[in-house]
Amino acid sequence: MTKADKVNFSTPSGFPEFLPGEKRLEVYLLDTIRRVFESYGFTPIETPAVERLEVLQAKGNQGDNIIYGISPILPPNRQAEKDKAGETGSEARALKFDQTVPLAAYIARHLNELTFPFARYQMDVVFRGERAKDGRFRQFRQCDIDVVARRELSLLYDAQMPAIISEIFTSVNIGDFLIRINNRKILTGFFKSVGVEENKIKSCIGIIDTLEKVGEAKVKQDLEKEGVLAEQTQQIIEFIKINGTVDQVLDKLKYLAQTREAEELSIGVTELETVIAGVRNLGVAENRFCIDLAIARGLDYYTGTVYETTLVGHEALGSICSGGRYEELVGTFLGEKMPGVGISIGLTRLISRLLKAGILDTFAATPAQVMVVNMQDDLMPVYLNVSQQLRQAGINVITSFEQRPLGKQFQQAEKQGIQFCVIIGSEEAAAQKSSLKDLKTREQVEVPVENLALEIKRRLA
Amino acid sequence: MTKADKVNFSTPSGFPEFLPGEKRLEVYLLDTIRRVFESYGFTPIETPAVERLEVLQAKGNQGDNIIYGISPILPPNRQAEKDKAGETGSEARALKFDQTVPLAAYIARHLNELTFPFARYQMDVVFRGERAKDGRFRQFRQCDIDVVARRELSLLYDAQMPAIISEIFTSVNIGDFLIRINNRKILTGFFKSVGVEENKIKSCIGIIDTLEKVGEAKVKQDLEKEGVLAEQTQQIIEFIKINGTVDQVLDKLKYLAQTREAEELSIGVTELETVIAGVRNLGVAENRFCIDLAIARGLDYYTGTVYETTLVGHEALGSICSGGRYEELVGTFLGEKMPGVGISIGLTRLISRLLKAGILDTFAATPAQVMVVNMQDDLMPVYLNVSQQLRQAGINVITSFEQRPLGKQFQQAEKQGIQFCVIIGSEEAAAQKSSLKDLKTREQVEVPVENLALEIKRRLA
Repeated sequence: MTKADKVNFSTPSGFPEFLPGEKRLEVYLLDTIRRVFESYGFTPIETPAVERLEVLQAKGNQGDNIIYGISPILPPNRQAEKDKAGETGSEARALKFDQTVPLAAYIARHLNELTFPFARYQMDVVFRGERAKDGRFRQFRQCDIDVVARRELSLLYDAQMPAIISEIFTSVNIGDFLIRINNRKILTGFFKSVGVEENKIKSCIGIIDTLEKVGEAKVKQDLEKEGVLAEQTQQIIEFIKINGTVDQVLDKLKYLAQTREAEELSIGVTELETVIAGVRNLGVAENRFCIDLAIARGLDYYTGTVYETTLVGHEALGSICSGGRYEELVGTFLGEKMPGVGISIGLTRLISRLLKAGILDTFAATPAQVMVVNMQDDLMPVYLNVSQQLRQAGINVITSFEQRPLGKQFQQAEKQGIQFCVIIGSEEAAAQKSSLKDLKTREQVEVPVENLALEIKRRLA
Repeated sequence: MTKADKVNFSTPSGFPEFLPGEKRLEVYLLDTIRRVFESYGFTPIETPAVERLEVLQAKGNQGDNIIYGISPILPPNRQAEKDKAGETGSEARALKFDQTVPLAAYIARHLNELTFPFARYQMDVVFRGERAKDGRFRQFRQCDIDVVARRELSLLYDAQMPAIISEIFTSVNIGDFLIRINNRKILTGFFKSVGVEENKIKSCIGIIDTLEKVGEAKVKQDLEKEGVLAEQTQQIIEFIKINGTVDQVLDKLKYLAQTREAEELSIGVTELETVIAGVRNLGVAENRFCIDLAIARGLDYYTGTVYETTLVGHEALGSICSGGRYEELVGTFLGEKMPGVGISIGLTRLISRLLKAGILDTFAATPAQVMVVNMQDDLMPVYLNVSQQLRQAGINVITSFEQRPLGKQFQQAEKQGIQFCVIIGSEEAAAQKSSLKDLKTREQVEVPVENLALEIKRRLA
């Protein structure tokens, strides 16, 4: 066979690919996330990877992303079809770079077929033509939920988000985490109350958002560069550093809201209080959440509750799940105000970071729990039959078809992370028995074939 | 809010999108297919949607596909970065159009990290720039398994494929199906034995493959056009029409192989016999498979066993799962002979066809099985608490946050396919009781809150 010479078969830079044990970890995380999302009634959707370019570019605030356009490459014998494939002008198409714009398009496309509030999850891959860097990919999977209403959306939907985050990260067992909750109206209201000009507030929030990354001195400097007075800057810094228990922070905020008579601040504090009450009624453990007035979320479409989640002791990894409440995002194509609240887990990046930090470990290379080894080819009917019996009991089985030394077969099983080998020679076959070898403990026991499935399930449990 | 005027927000032609009830059906099918794949030890992988163009074009026989190239579209403020993004010449990248070429690249990329025989499944979406037609999409999901060896690959892997196909389609309950099995060596060997020239055999097999679609007369005509003599054509037609029980066909084939002294025919018949014996040892029901000598699979990389699966009574839908054995496909980038056998389910197309034919039905629009209705806002802490209790028992719950007339809330639940409503007023709350309403039977029963989860699970089972 001739080799496809000189072909560079490596993945293009920024397009990651998992080994089986890593992919199995991703599948497990996706299953867990999905289970939690569905337990709150979020329903799955998937939008195409490809949208019209005008759809992807409809929201001005996304203009900073590098989008991948697509265009058909015709084989030499089909050049005549060039005109059919439509690739320019109003026909230009491109790969989606997030799931928010496609959600807006989905809602517009199916408005009358959906029930509102519409609670959906989406776990698709998205594409960004950014320069590939450590932990930043050009193709990555995002697990998003959003609930969207046509007019009013209860703040209790905001309260459900921390409950969902908490349950996901408790289930996947990645150690202590902390959900930081804030409300953009509190920031905006406070800034107004200290006299920051209205048109500077958005950029001030953007600056606050960098606090953890760049430190207090730099934030001060940036605020002053933005034209915020030194005294105002001081008040802002003191404000966002307010800490204590959730109730202490709420008390301070309520006091501030009263004394300052700042309407937006008051509204924000009341919203936050309602959300916190809901979070508690949903049974989220007190050590899982806090109020952090420095959480702002850079994205300027958030208008109320915002969330970030950090791993305690691994804060440098950044937020592992973020989101918030918005008013004018998903109604874009309909010209309708559609309040929504959502969160997003950047799964590809998360897995890559957690593996690197040793917080998560890869799975075994195969889902098989058992290998039925091949002692002699003429017993193959027995091996196939036993394999099927185990599969019917819900056990994943590889039957070893190659006749090789037993030691090699054990090695083959162990290398893939298979825990059990079933050994049946001619005597055992005649007596309907088997030897079950546990490759972890090196223990080997004799088990009647009819009890094999039960015995393996008992040991796996 | 201003509408994003004149934006055409419809999906680009050929890029389908499911409603929630359809997507939930897809998720169910994916789960079922995955469970069966994993029960035979197939492990998941996913290759990037994007590969180097030279990789996708490395196999000449795929040159007929229209591939989508990708190129970065820079926002106006970042035009200076154009050089970084690499899009032409050796840097050209494109979307994968199948999962076979990427599998070959994956194996080349990770050769020393994989265990052989390497049994993997993959359920990614692929892209083809074909003209969008009924049931033919530009983006679609394929569920593929392949097992690949570095030297020899036992024919028992071929035997597992019908067992896997049988279990999948029995599980998803789509009615009677028939797995048609053949071996390309039998066709090639027979063609040689009647004197068809060696260089015409591939195209003859391609013609045979169209029998079901175009009928016998057209096949005859095409074979003769290809330069096959009338007498040879007659023998071929008679041959591929051989039918009967599996054993009858095998007997006829063995007799033919003996009398004709055609080596390749003999090898093919022996292979087919071994595969059939394995299929039987794996317990596949006799009415699920047959030998069909007219099954050829157009793709010219198949070298041995080939499969097609048809729905009995719906043969016009075409094959719902096909595949076969190949020798020189996945070793392309390594210049190594790597025998493999695989099958593929074109899931997007399958769902679209089965829904249209009424063979499958969509799922409910939400995974929620229960709605906890809102009788009065001040009981919300009770509703939230009850909702969490049910979720912890594995039940999917929507809590109704909006205070609306009870009838409206029932309607809202029913519209989404939710079966149960939990009703708790102040008296019930005080007594720790609830009313459970079954929207299917219209029955309503009183249940203590502590028994609610059990009662709902009993009724769901």
